[in-house]
Amino acid sequence: MFSFTVIKKDIHTNARLGRLVTARGVVETPAFMPVGTQGSVKALSPRDLEEIGCQIMLANTYHLYLRPGVEVIRDLGGLHRFIGWKRAILTDSGGFQVFSLGGLRKITEEGVRFQSHLDGSSHLLTPEKVVEIQQELGSDVAMVLDECIPHPATKEYAKASTDRTMRWAERSLKAHRRSDQALFAIVQGGMYRELRSACVERLALLPFDGYAVGGLGVGEEPSTLHAIGEFTAGFLPERRPRYLMGVGRPEDLIFAVGSGYDLFDCVLPTRNARNGTLFTSRGKLNIKRAEFLKDPRPVDDACGCYCCRNFSRAYLRHLYHAGEMLAAQLHTLHNLYYYHGLMESCRRAIREEGFQNWASRLRSHGAEVEGGEDSQS
Amino acid sequence: MFSFTVIKKDIHTNARLGRLVTARGVVETPAFMPVGTQGSVKALSPRDLEEIGCQIMLANTYHLYLRPGVEVIRDLGGLHRFIGWKRAILTDSGGFQVFSLGGLRKITEEGVRFQSHLDGSSHLLTPEKVVEIQQELGSDVAMVLDECIPHPATKEYAKASTDRTMRWAERSLKAHRRSDQALFAIVQGGMYRELRSACVERLALLPFDGYAVGGLGVGEEPSTLHAIGEFTAGFLPERRPRYLMGVGRPEDLIFAVGSGYDLFDCVLPTRNARNGTLFTSRGKLNIKRAEFLKDPRPVDDACGCYCCRNFSRAYLRHLYHAGEMLAAQLHTLHNLYYYHGLMESCRRAIREEGFQNWASRLRSHGAEVEGGEDSQS
Repeated sequence: MFSFTVIKKDIHTNARLGRLVTARGVVETPAFMPVGTQGSVKALSPRDLEEIGCQIMLANTYHLYLRPGVEVIRDLGGLHRFIGWKRAILTDSGGFQVFSLGGLRKITEEGVRFQSHLDGSSHLLTPEKVVEIQQELGSDVAMVLDECIPHPATKEYAKASTDRTMRWAERSLKAHRRSDQALFAIVQGGMYRELRSACVERLALLPFDGYAVGGLGVGEEPSTLHAIGEFTAGFLPERRPRYLMGVGRPEDLIFAVGSGYDLFDCVLPTRNARNGTLFTSRGKLNIKRAEFLKDPRPVDDACGCYCCRNFSRAYLRHLYHAGEMLAAQLHTLHNLYYYHGLMESCRRAIREEGFQNWASRLRSHGAEVEGGEDSQS
Repeated sequence: MFSFTVIKKDIHTNARLGRLVTARGVVETPAFMPVGTQGSVKALSPRDLEEIGCQIMLANTYHLYLRPGVEVIRDLGGLHRFIGWKRAILTDSGGFQVFSLGGLRKITEEGVRFQSHLDGSSHLLTPEKVVEIQQELGSDVAMVLDECIPHPATKEYAKASTDRTMRWAERSLKAHRRSDQALFAIVQGGMYRELRSACVERLALLPFDGYAVGGLGVGEEPSTLHAIGEFTAGFLPERRPRYLMGVGRPEDLIFAVGSGYDLFDCVLPTRNARNGTLFTSRGKLNIKRAEFLKDPRPVDDACGCYCCRNFSRAYLRHLYHAGEMLAAQLHTLHNLYYYHGLMESCRRAIREEGFQNWASRLRSHGAEVEGGEDSQS
C-alpha cells in the first residue's frame, strides 16, 4: 500500500525525483504539503486544492483529537471522508502543538500530559495513544510522537530529550498496526550535529516507512537551519522518503531539495496569504501597500492561477482593506499555487536540466522584490 | 441595450415569467440578486456565483464610492472589470445606506449630506451625483436616489419624504446619459396605501426602464409587508421590470412573485450563511446545534450544490465551531444555491403547472423545520 521510489538523482546536488505511492494515490516528490490544521486548509475547499495540483495535505492530530474528537471522525468513516478529500493525508503527531503549550504541559517517560487550549481539560498523549489516534483517523502517513526541542537548548537537555524521542519512536513502531498507513520516524537533536547523526543512525535501524527531520525552523538563523538540515540529510536512508518538517520559505525549500529532502510543510504560504503577503516569481509582494491602489496588473504576470488570471492588484488590495473574506481565499489560492509550482519546477529541473542550474537561475531572477516584505509574516 | 419582456403571465396569480436583456446578458425573471456590498458577494468568488446560476448581482454605490472610490474603479475599466464579473450588475443608489447612518446625515431638497462611516469625512449625495457615480461604475442597472422612510413614520413625514423622492427621481432621469445602462425609479410611501399609489402613478408617467418598491422589510410585520407589497404591485406598469428591494425570506419571495414582482435582493441568505443558518427544502437548519455532531447527512439531501454533494452536517458544524472560513464559504454557496433554485422553481411553475399549485405544495412540504431557527438571523 505504501512505497517510495527514487526515480532520478540529480548530478551535482543531492536532489532527488521521487514517487510516493499511498493508499490514496501517487505523490510526486519533492512535494509541498499545505497545512489543514483543523481539517481544512484555511480559506480553501478540497476542489481548490485539487485545482492547484495538491496531491497530499497535512492535518493536525492535536487539533482534531480535541475537536471534533477522534471518535466523531472515525464513526463518520475516517478523516478523508470527514473533510471531503480523496487524496493523501499526512497527520502529524500533535507533539509540536503540545510542546508549544509551554507551561500547560508536562513531559514524562510515559508521554506528555497537557491541558486543552480550548477548555482546559487534562489529556495524556503517549506514543501508543498518538499512533492509535492516527490509525483511527486513517491518514495515509502517520508520525510518531516526538519532542520538538526549543531553541536554544543546552546540550544536556537536547541529549536527554532526543534519547527519549528515540525510545518513543520504538514504542510507536510496536503500537502501529495499519498496513494501509505509513509510519514516519522523526529525527531530533537540536542544533547539535553529533546528536542529530546519532539519532538518525539509531532510527535508521528500525523499519520506518519514512524519516522526518524536526526541530528546525524554530527560531534559529537560516544559515543554521540550512547547515543542520543538510548535515542531517546526509545520514538519512537513501531509499526512504525524507520530510523536513515545518520549513519554510521558498529559498529554504530550494536549499532543502538540493540537500535531498522530498517532503515539506509550512503554514507560511497560507498564513502570509491571510496577512496580504503574496509570493511571486519576482519576490514577495505586500498587497496592502498604497502603490497598488490603481494597479491593474495581476499579482504575478507569470502565474496561471485563478487569482492572477482574473483579478488585479487593485481589486485584491481593496478586498483586503475592506475586510472581505475573498481576499484570504484568492491570496491563499495564489500562494499555494506558487508553492506547488515551485515544487513542480524543482521536479522538472531534476528531470531535465539539472537542479543546480535551475536554482541559480531562479536566484538571479528573484532579486527584484516588489512591494516589500511584510514584517508580520 | 436594455429590454424587458413578459414571456408568460400566470393564470391564477399575478406572477410573471420574464426576460430582462442587459448589456451583459440575459436575466431570467423572477430572479434573486445576491448582495455584493463592497464589490464581493461575501465568501464567494465570481466563478462560484456563475456555478450557482447567478445572472445578476447587486453592488452598493455608497460603499464603493467611499472605498476604493469611484475614480479608481472607473480608471480600472469599470465595476465589472474591477471585480471580475462578466454578467449583469445592479447598483443601488446608496440612499438606503446613507439613511441608515441616522444622526450622521442631513436631508435637504438638494440631497443628503453625510459623514463617512470609515473616516468621518463629509460628503454630499445629490440625485445627479448618484447617477453620475453609477454611470462611472458602469453598472447595467442604476437606481435613483430615494429616501427609505423609517418605520414607523407619521403620514405627514411620509408624504413630505415621498414627494421629495419623486422630485429627486425626475432630477435623476434628467441627469442620466448612458444608453447602455437602465435606470430604475423607486416607489416609496411608507405603509400608507394612498401615498404608495400616488407615488407609483406619478413615477409611471416618466420613462424609467424599471420600477423598484423600497421601504419594505424595514421592521414592519410580514403581513404588512405582503399587503403593501401586493397593493403597490397592482399599480406598477405591466411592461416594466418590478423590483422589490431588500426582501427577503423564502416565503416573502414566493408571496412577492405571486404579487407580480420580478427582481429581489436581500442579505439574508449570505448573512445567515455566515451565522450558520442554512435554508433547506424542509425549512431552516441551525448547523451549530449539538445534534449535528455526528450527522453524516448533507445539509439538504434534495440539494445538488457543491456543499451538499461533498460535506456532512457534522463537518460543517465542526468548521463553524472551529472558526474556519470554509464554513462561511460552503454555507454561502449553499444558501445562494437554494435561493437561485427557488427562483428557478418559480419560473418553472409559471411556465408549466401554474404558480399557485406549486406554491401551496411547497408550503405543505416546508412545514418540517430541522434544527430550529437562528434567533440571530
